[in-house]
Amino acid sequence: MKDIIDFDAYEVGFDIPAKPGMDAADIQTPALVLDLDALERNIKKMGDYAKAHGMRHRAHGKMHKSVDVLKLQMELGGAVGVCCQKVSEAEVFARAGVKEILVSNQVRDLVKIERLAQLPKMSGGEVIVCIDDVANVADLSAAATKHGTNLGVFIEIDCGAGRCGVTTTPAVVELARAVKAAESLTYKGIQAYQGAMQHIDSFEDRKAKLDAAIAQVSDAVETLKAEGIATELVSGGGTGSYYFESNSGLYNELQCGSYAFMDADYGRILDKDGKRIDAGEWENAFFILTSVMSHAKADKAICDAGLKAQSVDSGLPFIYGRNDVEYIKCSDEHGVISDPNGVLKVNDKLKLVPGHCDPTANVHDWYVGVRNGKVECVWPVSARGRAY
Amino acid sequence: MKDIIDFDAYEVGFDIPAKPGMDAADIQTPALVLDLDALERNIKKMGDYAKAHGMRHRAHGKMHKSVDVLKLQMELGGAVGVCCQKVSEAEVFARAGVKEILVSNQVRDLVKIERLAQLPKMSGGEVIVCIDDVANVADLSAAATKHGTNLGVFIEIDCGAGRCGVTTTPAVVELARAVKAAESLTYKGIQAYQGAMQHIDSFEDRKAKLDAAIAQVSDAVETLKAEGIATELVSGGGTGSYYFESNSGLYNELQCGSYAFMDADYGRILDKDGKRIDAGEWENAFFILTSVMSHAKADKAICDAGLKAQSVDSGLPFIYGRNDVEYIKCSDEHGVISDPNGVLKVNDKLKLVPGHCDPTANVHDWYVGVRNGKVECVWPVSARGRAY
Repeated sequence: MKDIIDFDAYEVGFDIPAKPGMDAADIQTPALVLDLDALERNIKKMGDYAKAHGMRHRAHGKMHKSVDVLKLQMELGGAVGVCCQKVSEAEVFARAGVKEILVSNQVRDLVKIERLAQLPKMSGGEVIVCIDDVANVADLSAAATKHGTNLGVFIEIDCGAGRCGVTTTPAVVELARAVKAAESLTYKGIQAYQGAMQHIDSFEDRKAKLDAAIAQVSDAVETLKAEGIATELVSGGGTGSYYFESNSGLYNELQCGSYAFMDADYGRILDKDGKRIDAGEWENAFFILTSVMSHAKADKAICDAGLKAQSVDSGLPFIYGRNDVEYIKCSDEHGVISDPNGVLKVNDKLKLVPGHCDPTANVHDWYVGVRNGKVECVWPVSARGRAY
Repeated sequence: MKDIIDFDAYEVGFDIPAKPGMDAADIQTPALVLDLDALERNIKKMGDYAKAHGMRHRAHGKMHKSVDVLKLQMELGGAVGVCCQKVSEAEVFARAGVKEILVSNQVRDLVKIERLAQLPKMSGGEVIVCIDDVANVADLSAAATKHGTNLGVFIEIDCGAGRCGVTTTPAVVELARAVKAAESLTYKGIQAYQGAMQHIDSFEDRKAKLDAAIAQVSDAVETLKAEGIATELVSGGGTGSYYFESNSGLYNELQCGSYAFMDADYGRILDKDGKRIDAGEWENAFFILTSVMSHAKADKAICDAGLKAQSVDSGLPFIYGRNDVEYIKCSDEHGVISDPNGVLKVNDKLKLVPGHCDPTANVHDWYVGVRNGKVECVWPVSARGRAY
């Protein structure tokens, strides 16, 4: 399981930022750079945590969209498989042979359902999809039956994300019954990701939100049990909450993604001791490497990473390891850096920690993995642009 | 000049949203859709305007990153060539044989300069680059000499964008003299794009900013003339300002890009009569086609276009042609649509006008061109991800 790349087909500075074996100093910018030591430590740490707490970890692939990163999460971090948000994304992992795939989202379009129903043949493993509408059950069942496959189904509970998902226990029961009665579908469990709380700074405020979610999901699971419907998996949890789910006695599967890379928006939330989570819990492993391209004004440097190199939906990036300079403005291809003491020079390189790792990874084609000053690997963002 | 695509190599719903000849109703979402009639009218209108005002139009390719869209701008709109912001982007157009290419930006890294110096051989035409630092001249000159080419040079004046560019006439003169003295470089003119004013709503406020820019640039050009240095081209102008440059008696080249597609942020600026420019001056030709994938709550529909399908740096998209529903929240793969009267159904399709067309185009791989309900063409976003 690995993306095989013919590096001879690419030219550094045209369609690839670097090749394996190069000095890190020669990476063409802007480029996504992974600190492999930090990445591996993050991945191992989450894997150890999940194992110690008896939790399955189904790593969220929508964050990195990379077969190679997932491989590390599975081999080094003990992840059982992957979550995806889109069928086309899931297909990338299915083609790579990942045996446990969850589309943690609704699939309603009939063309997408046709593709979804064929994924188990591609991967040779299990494929689960979420539902929040009984009208979806017949379409999923018909497609799986047609292709001679079986699809696992999670009932999605909206326990705070405010997007898809049902909100009442009777709705959960109705959906589970419909799945149990449908051909070629298997009721596998509950999808319950509290998305809105992940980025609340205060640990106690996050805990209060998760306590409410746990009560809501627990009611549904207990009611199903009383109806004779056993729930194998209760799945959810993110980088801002996984300890709550792990200690809930209810959830048995985590879906963390951002912990592996970290970003500026997650980094500023606080742990139980009031410390930023990027100051001990997780390391910054994911950077936009950028170069200064102009310094025509004494107090401002202009760098080459703008909106085509990152998403600023969750705020501007910060400059890693520097408090003497600040990234203050982002336009299409330029970043404006405040440099009040004029310490930067043209062609100086800086490492930006972007506001939000997921949509930032999605604008790049390649990850450049660096260790000890060398480019150790260059990985494609395998599912980049797979939004269908 | 055209991107040649082997459509058999792609699968609809996996790595392409549609193929030519399909019904528009069958496009897989989310997808970038171009209304070809509107696009052609916009392109023809700007071409006619430029011709009537004796202006060259060098269309900005960083907006669409598409050889096919540029081809329309040249054939239908009389554009003389293309502007780019990056060398790798310029290389896409050079490989397609575009004879007039301007890199409207600084190129400082030596690897990038090496590539830049070879572009005239690829395109068989003229390549111009901007400078704002005398230290850049020797590097550009050496690379062009080494490759037996000649590079045109624009002196970049910062007349309000607040990014690259010099701000004083003496600095312009110093740079022009250095270029005149350098081997394999030709002084071609002035780059003076007032970027910051393009999105100011009021016509009069925009005019005041442009008047100041014109005075600043005029002083530099007159001073150069008095020194015996003739300025062939004065280049700049965007969708929010091109009439000011065209009537300045100073500029002779426009660099407009967004007029062809339109977006929500440009659309709301006002023309001289106080009317939104997307209500008569330019048509919306560029949309994210999205599908409703969940309606589990009575007053909210969830659609499949989130941050992986657009950039929200300039605000959320609006829903084209609808005032009964509103796009109110954007997360990675979901858009939350307020639907107070419950008029939307699962699998309904909506056309979003994104906040900012340039970085939105850059997350997609394909444009789907539609006319009369049919997919007429599918064009690659040829320079997508070319950020080097």
